[in-house]
Amino acid sequence: MGALSSMFWALWYILPAYFANASPVLLGGGRPIDGGRKWRDGNRILGDGKTWRGFLGGVSVGTLVGVLQYYLTPAFYGSLKTAVLLAFLLSFGALMGDLVGSFIKRRLNLPRGYPAVGLDQLGFLISALAFAYPVKTISSGQMLFLLIFTPLVHWGANYFAYKMGWKSVPW
Amino acid sequence: MGALSSMFWALWYILPAYFANASPVLLGGGRPIDGGRKWRDGNRILGDGKTWRGFLGGVSVGTLVGVLQYYLTPAFYGSLKTAVLLAFLLSFGALMGDLVGSFIKRRLNLPRGYPAVGLDQLGFLISALAFAYPVKTISSGQMLFLLIFTPLVHWGANYFAYKMGWKSVPW
Repeated sequence: MGALSSMFWALWYILPAYFANASPVLLGGGRPIDGGRKWRDGNRILGDGKTWRGFLGGVSVGTLVGVLQYYLTPAFYGSLKTAVLLAFLLSFGALMGDLVGSFIKRRLNLPRGYPAVGLDQLGFLISALAFAYPVKTISSGQMLFLLIFTPLVHWGANYFAYKMGWKSVPW
Repeated sequence: MGALSSMFWALWYILPAYFANASPVLLGGGRPIDGGRKWRDGNRILGDGKTWRGFLGGVSVGTLVGVLQYYLTPAFYGSLKTAVLLAFLLSFGALMGDLVGSFIKRRLNLPRGYPAVGLDQLGFLISALAFAYPVKTISSGQMLFLLIFTPLVHWGANYFAYKMGWKSVPW
């Protein structure tokens, strides 16, 4: 497999995680997952930024992306069942990583929306890769490509969302 | 290869990067790499925390660790030349990742020593893995293990260094 082809399939593989991670920006709002409860340090467990609608919406969008991907490239997945399970795990993993990130940020007393450089760009990716690993994984070279490329996409996408007025801060 | 054995060899593989990343805490000080110069945003390019002594000391310590590793497990490396080149690239990559991290932190106007959660724990690791990749790599499962395990080691080590009085902040 050539380098370009290898990079394309790495991005194709991770696509549901990207969609799951991005969609709460548009689908979010509603009841916070922590129900307003606080941790023993007096700060919110997760904060108002993490809602059930954002989480379930993100998992749904990511899983639907996987269905679409199967019909475009069935040979890459082998079966619809594998494609759907993979997309679900990538999406669920991405959003779980996002929640763990919020939990860490609240414990460090960083305000909601404040950037945790690295955690915001890589936490969801590493979590998605780990959850999906038992079903289907990629090569270590492809993984390194995603680890370096994703922060660039993330910064670009957030800057775009900020310029479109979807986010109040450019990160 | 069993899971435990796989994890052991992943840690053995990355060891020079850990040493290179940790040693500037003890070996650091001296002339800053940016020579006191500022970027066009008015902030220091890298800051006083990144010095030539820390960088060259870290690369030297990491590379020496690789020599020791070769004599303990020659079969893992095949030749002394491979072991030394691998250890050099892992160490150089770790410290380059650290410099890029400092550059990003200065551009975001974060003060020296202020934690960039994720970047501090993962930037040096991803950079080390990427630099060493052409010489010898690990499986994607081992890479995921290091991506999840390293932040825990990093937090533990920094807390220890803080308790020992080697660092002024526990991160």
